[in-house]
Amino acid sequence: MSRPITIVEVGPRDGLQNERIVLEPTVRAELVRRLEAAGARRIEAVSFVHPKYVPQMAGAEEVMALLPPAAGRSRIGLVLNGKGYDRALGTPVDEVNVAMSATDGFGLKNQGLTVDQQVGMLADIVAGRRNAEGEPGAAPALTATLSCVWGCPFDGEVSTGQVEDLVGRIAELGVGEIALADTIGAGDPWSVTRKVEAARRAAPDAVLRLHFHDTRNTGLANAHAGVEAGIDVLDASVGGIGGCPFAPGATGNIATEDLVYMLERAGFETGYDLDALIAVARWIGEKIGRPAPSALSRAGGWPRSTADAAQR
Amino acid sequence: MSRPITIVEVGPRDGLQNERIVLEPTVRAELVRRLEAAGARRIEAVSFVHPKYVPQMAGAEEVMALLPPAAGRSRIGLVLNGKGYDRALGTPVDEVNVAMSATDGFGLKNQGLTVDQQVGMLADIVAGRRNAEGEPGAAPALTATLSCVWGCPFDGEVSTGQVEDLVGRIAELGVGEIALADTIGAGDPWSVTRKVEAARRAAPDAVLRLHFHDTRNTGLANAHAGVEAGIDVLDASVGGIGGCPFAPGATGNIATEDLVYMLERAGFETGYDLDALIAVARWIGEKIGRPAPSALSRAGGWPRSTADAAQR
Repeated sequence: MSRPITIVEVGPRDGLQNERIVLEPTVRAELVRRLEAAGARRIEAVSFVHPKYVPQMAGAEEVMALLPPAAGRSRIGLVLNGKGYDRALGTPVDEVNVAMSATDGFGLKNQGLTVDQQVGMLADIVAGRRNAEGEPGAAPALTATLSCVWGCPFDGEVSTGQVEDLVGRIAELGVGEIALADTIGAGDPWSVTRKVEAARRAAPDAVLRLHFHDTRNTGLANAHAGVEAGIDVLDASVGGIGGCPFAPGATGNIATEDLVYMLERAGFETGYDLDALIAVARWIGEKIGRPAPSALSRAGGWPRSTADAAQR
Repeated sequence: MSRPITIVEVGPRDGLQNERIVLEPTVRAELVRRLEAAGARRIEAVSFVHPKYVPQMAGAEEVMALLPPAAGRSRIGLVLNGKGYDRALGTPVDEVNVAMSATDGFGLKNQGLTVDQQVGMLADIVAGRRNAEGEPGAAPALTATLSCVWGCPFDGEVSTGQVEDLVGRIAELGVGEIALADTIGAGDPWSVTRKVEAARRAAPDAVLRLHFHDTRNTGLANAHAGVEAGIDVLDASVGGIGGCPFAPGATGNIATEDLVYMLERAGFETGYDLDALIAVARWIGEKIGRPAPSALSRAGGWPRSTADAAQR
């Protein structure tokens, strides 16, 4: 069993944007570099949102300017609308990820758009790319992330049918990779299997990617179900950072090192150096002023040598 | 999908024996009562070990004296040897669980017995029960837990063949339920599937039960794999208590409320009232002087009502 699994590192974006301490662009670029040195090959590095709403993500252009393009490394920029997309085009991002929501409630709160308006926004971005085709400086790759797939804090339960329908509409626009996100960490692994199967029916030619939060400790179980359902691409955040330390119950993404441990121990190939990754988790923990909440940054990998173990 | 899953609550034993603060028998009996009020039907309530080695478990007889037998409720006592078994017989425990290890290294450290000596010890207990058959005060049910199935801190990796062999030897003695334990939290869900299948080959007539620690955050993923492999009985500890707060890396059992959430959300029946269980987790957190580390005692269940959610 040496099936490769791609982990998209989202710590510099989804992790840091939910931390209390705001880090300078230089530190955020350093985080990207350290993650790449530990094995990350796709990193959500920046978000092109207004700093008034998300001060943690201010200076996306500065972060990207500190990251010269490198072969085999993809830096991703998140956008919420066409304006963000245009900003992204002014930087050397390799991929643009368009945030969307499975529900009107979250879409309106997060980006001021109903589901239908989000699909229209995505269609406009796609149309703009078609018009620009063949021009110098080819457009970055385009992906979409659908949030609230396993539940919405405003609209409640989200049905498998709702997800299937919306994934189909996104795929029809020609988006080649679609991420399904459990934004509030409410999913269980059996519903992951069902919604992955539904999404595949709706978008048989798209790459499906999964994005889990560990709010209710089901994150790795959900990842296991996803991999068993044939998923090859998963998001994770170094150290499991994110969530707001002042909002009871908020929790970060599944931790990259926890996911790497589970997968590598089972024989999958992630391309990461686990010890190097744990070192990055501890380093970013110092920067954000609290220990990274991941299990592996506390417990370390296993097996260590028998001699080591006997010393403990 | 309304398949019932039995959760064996091990917080009063495996949880509390690894906490720094030692609780009086009255508090431990109160914990058992509160857990039963929240829905627990099988509880590892006491351990018949010498208080010199495990002061947290001193006074097992006192705990049991505070728990009058009740229909449909099973209180379990853990024993490490024949001496502990004889002590258990002097109390109204409904089940005796014999601790065993898949490795010589852990067996010698934990109970001064190699694997072969442990099998001999178990055989002696079984023989004693046969001799006493038909006598008044029928013997409590007998189960065995095999530790270090997914790795040993002293002997390193544990093979599927080792587990299959030993489970077969235990089943041959007539033990009707055998628990496989990931003592150091090193397993991954794919290896859970393999070892459950091997154990079932070795003991096709025994009930198999699983016992996971969340040291590396794989506990619920391992539980998911186990349930998918046909397991109907899982151990868990209220609040996820246990592990030693002063030993870096040590971590408790998977939390009962986290497991209940994952299973109930997927439509399985556990018999627990999740909110009542969370209240018990918070109560025991006060008693042990640190918040229970479970995810659900922090985040709460989901869905709440839409109105509640909008208020957050």
